[in-house]
Amino acid sequence: MKIFHNISQLITLAGGPQRGLQLGRLGMIEQGAVVCEGENILAAGGNEEMLERYPDAERVDLHGRAVVPGFVDPHTHLIWAGDRANEFEMRLQGKSYMEIMAAGGGILATLTATRNASLEQLMEEARSRGDTAFSYGTTTIEAKTGYGLDIETELRQLEAILELDRTAPIEIVPTYMGAHAIPPEYKGNPAGYTRFLCEEALPATKQWWLEHASGRPLPFVDVFCEAGVFEIEETREILSAAKALGFPLKLHADEFENLGGASLAAELGAVSADHLVKTSLKDIARLAASETVAVSLPGTPFGLAQQEYTPAKEILAADGYLALATDLNPGTTWNESMQFIQALACRYLKLTPAQALAASTINAAKAVALEHTVGSIEPGKQADFLVLTTPDYRNLSYRYGTNQVAIVVKKGDLYPNAD
Amino acid sequence: MKIFHNISQLITLAGGPQRGLQLGRLGMIEQGAVVCEGENILAAGGNEEMLERYPDAERVDLHGRAVVPGFVDPHTHLIWAGDRANEFEMRLQGKSYMEIMAAGGGILATLTATRNASLEQLMEEARSRGDTAFSYGTTTIEAKTGYGLDIETELRQLEAILELDRTAPIEIVPTYMGAHAIPPEYKGNPAGYTRFLCEEALPATKQWWLEHASGRPLPFVDVFCEAGVFEIEETREILSAAKALGFPLKLHADEFENLGGASLAAELGAVSADHLVKTSLKDIARLAASETVAVSLPGTPFGLAQQEYTPAKEILAADGYLALATDLNPGTTWNESMQFIQALACRYLKLTPAQALAASTINAAKAVALEHTVGSIEPGKQADFLVLTTPDYRNLSYRYGTNQVAIVVKKGDLYPNAD
Repeated sequence: MKIFHNISQLITLAGGPQRGLQLGRLGMIEQGAVVCEGENILAAGGNEEMLERYPDAERVDLHGRAVVPGFVDPHTHLIWAGDRANEFEMRLQGKSYMEIMAAGGGILATLTATRNASLEQLMEEARSRGDTAFSYGTTTIEAKTGYGLDIETELRQLEAILELDRTAPIEIVPTYMGAHAIPPEYKGNPAGYTRFLCEEALPATKQWWLEHASGRPLPFVDVFCEAGVFEIEETREILSAAKALGFPLKLHADEFENLGGASLAAELGAVSADHLVKTSLKDIARLAASETVAVSLPGTPFGLAQQEYTPAKEILAADGYLALATDLNPGTTWNESMQFIQALACRYLKLTPAQALAASTINAAKAVALEHTVGSIEPGKQADFLVLTTPDYRNLSYRYGTNQVAIVVKKGDLYPNAD
Repeated sequence: MKIFHNISQLITLAGGPQRGLQLGRLGMIEQGAVVCEGENILAAGGNEEMLERYPDAERVDLHGRAVVPGFVDPHTHLIWAGDRANEFEMRLQGKSYMEIMAAGGGILATLTATRNASLEQLMEEARSRGDTAFSYGTTTIEAKTGYGLDIETELRQLEAILELDRTAPIEIVPTYMGAHAIPPEYKGNPAGYTRFLCEEALPATKQWWLEHASGRPLPFVDVFCEAGVFEIEETREILSAAKALGFPLKLHADEFENLGGASLAAELGAVSADHLVKTSLKDIARLAASETVAVSLPGTPFGLAQQEYTPAKEILAADGYLALATDLNPGTTWNESMQFIQALACRYLKLTPAQALAASTINAAKAVALEHTVGSIEPGKQADFLVLTTPDYRNLSYRYGTNQVAIVVKKGDLYPNAD
């Protein structure tokens, strides 16, 4: 048993996911302490009370620093090979989209590199990103496939997820995203690829999972619903097939155009609808009336130097659940840090530091259906929390660009960052 | 003698500061090595050639990673006490400027905290920021006074700068900025405070410096030339008095309004003119025709969630010298990382990664008149350089939000970051 004591601000985020304008209820205990037993939290409360109640626990003095729940990053494309620094540079040199494609850029570049990568290479590259995310405070991360788009590579990505989850300190939530793009084999034939996904890829993935995932629940299935990729009817087809097979659902919706993806996600009971930049007020209302979490990815417009962000205020006013994520990927936003996402969310979604933190912890946990095990500091939950470098949690958004996590605690184990 | 070998990309930035559209000449050596003797660089060249020429040097294998010059941050307000996280939160809660002032916010909050801080406290708080900047790759940092605005506190800030420079690994370039704001004692009387600066503070500062700075050249003198702070004529008065006393000059110009500060900086031979958001094309032309470096601070609009940035393309088209800096300060932008500034500059000033890097090294060195000792990897210069975590320097801008420096080398000494 360990007691982490002498905490200036213990931000528990207790009480479950936070709807609408309730977002930002910190459950703050000033002068607090957390007691852990093995992998779990046994108690959280006032410093003196906890020290008295657990006199024999091993003491870890946190020297008046703040403690917050470990961040949950509910939307990443963690598993890929190669990079697209070249494409980033070409864009800045004024090259057109077509010139970049002709030079082998775009998602096809990552597709080719990922198809050509061994399991070991995929794991090595993803492990480096996972370790970075972890040292910046992400204790649970969602990871999608979607850079294979054939059965073999997609399963290799799933295998990398399972193996990384087993061997790295960060905990990984798997998502199958064969519907990330139309592969070259089906160019101009989205209907054919949709049929392939529904009739072959999804059943094969389920079969593989049951044989390889040691009894873990099925991964999420996610679709990139966007004009020119998967239209709304194709998206409905794929998600319905996945649902019939028992997969839980997620959805990329309204990043560039308002196709109605958010409403579809709500209708089908998806766990989350993500991006939501162009979402109409009607779609926001439908989403907010459901249990589906709206996941905003402010790193994506930032990475692309675009000016338009998720209408977060409208989502909160409509009483929706709002969460934040990085969207970590090689094309639009290579950033592993949920701290930076909170700094962005304050500036561009106009959240308060408390709202940004709740959207990165307890609400983000709901966006991967883990709100009962992570995302807050409460008895019975996993002992996943962060000791900050300073006494004030608001610094996570006020300051930016650097790492303000001093120690990551994952399932009760301490992983200190260097000073 | 040490040889740092097995470098994928050795970015030397050799050949001096880079004017206008020449910005971004990397002087890249693929498969390179750097040889250091004591604090200085002895040679830089191809890997095989260097290994053959210096067979007895101690070898440091860099395992195929990229090396770039140490970053120079030519504009910061490093020395202050306290923080303004509260004010940041109030802004996001929709509080007005007047409400924030009434709650003790704004520059006066930092002024009070700094006046009340001992030398030891000032040094401890600034040391923490300096160490962060250093671990993110800044090997030389400019630091301004300006949170005292009385002779005693301003001199204490200068003392903190000298003492930190002596004891911390980061090298600090001092700037006296008594003209940062109008202090409460002179409220509504900028003419009176201007007279105080010219007739009392500047001569007293020079006297103190000659007695305490062990023969170091005089610090820069900087003025916040802005409507409602120091108008253009007051600015001219202060800078002229400083120049007559032998101080080299810098200038805060055109952050919120176009008062003509950039032209004044060029006319008076200032080493740099900084901010330059509202600068007119006429002022840009005058600046570009001079040796005065245009220093852009993209962290400031970002920190304030404003949309307008320095017209960098226009400055380059006019053949000016462009540099980048953080503007690190407690009010508008608490960010120590020049890596993040490069990521911002690519996205919001539309620089290429190569231009952003040159503007953060050799041109930034010119902005603090140190272009002959730091800012590039050339024989005779200080051995200040960075080993990145990856083989490609472009990742410094393409990726963002995390630390991509594996090892900081300052005056030949290695300071590795944790993996």
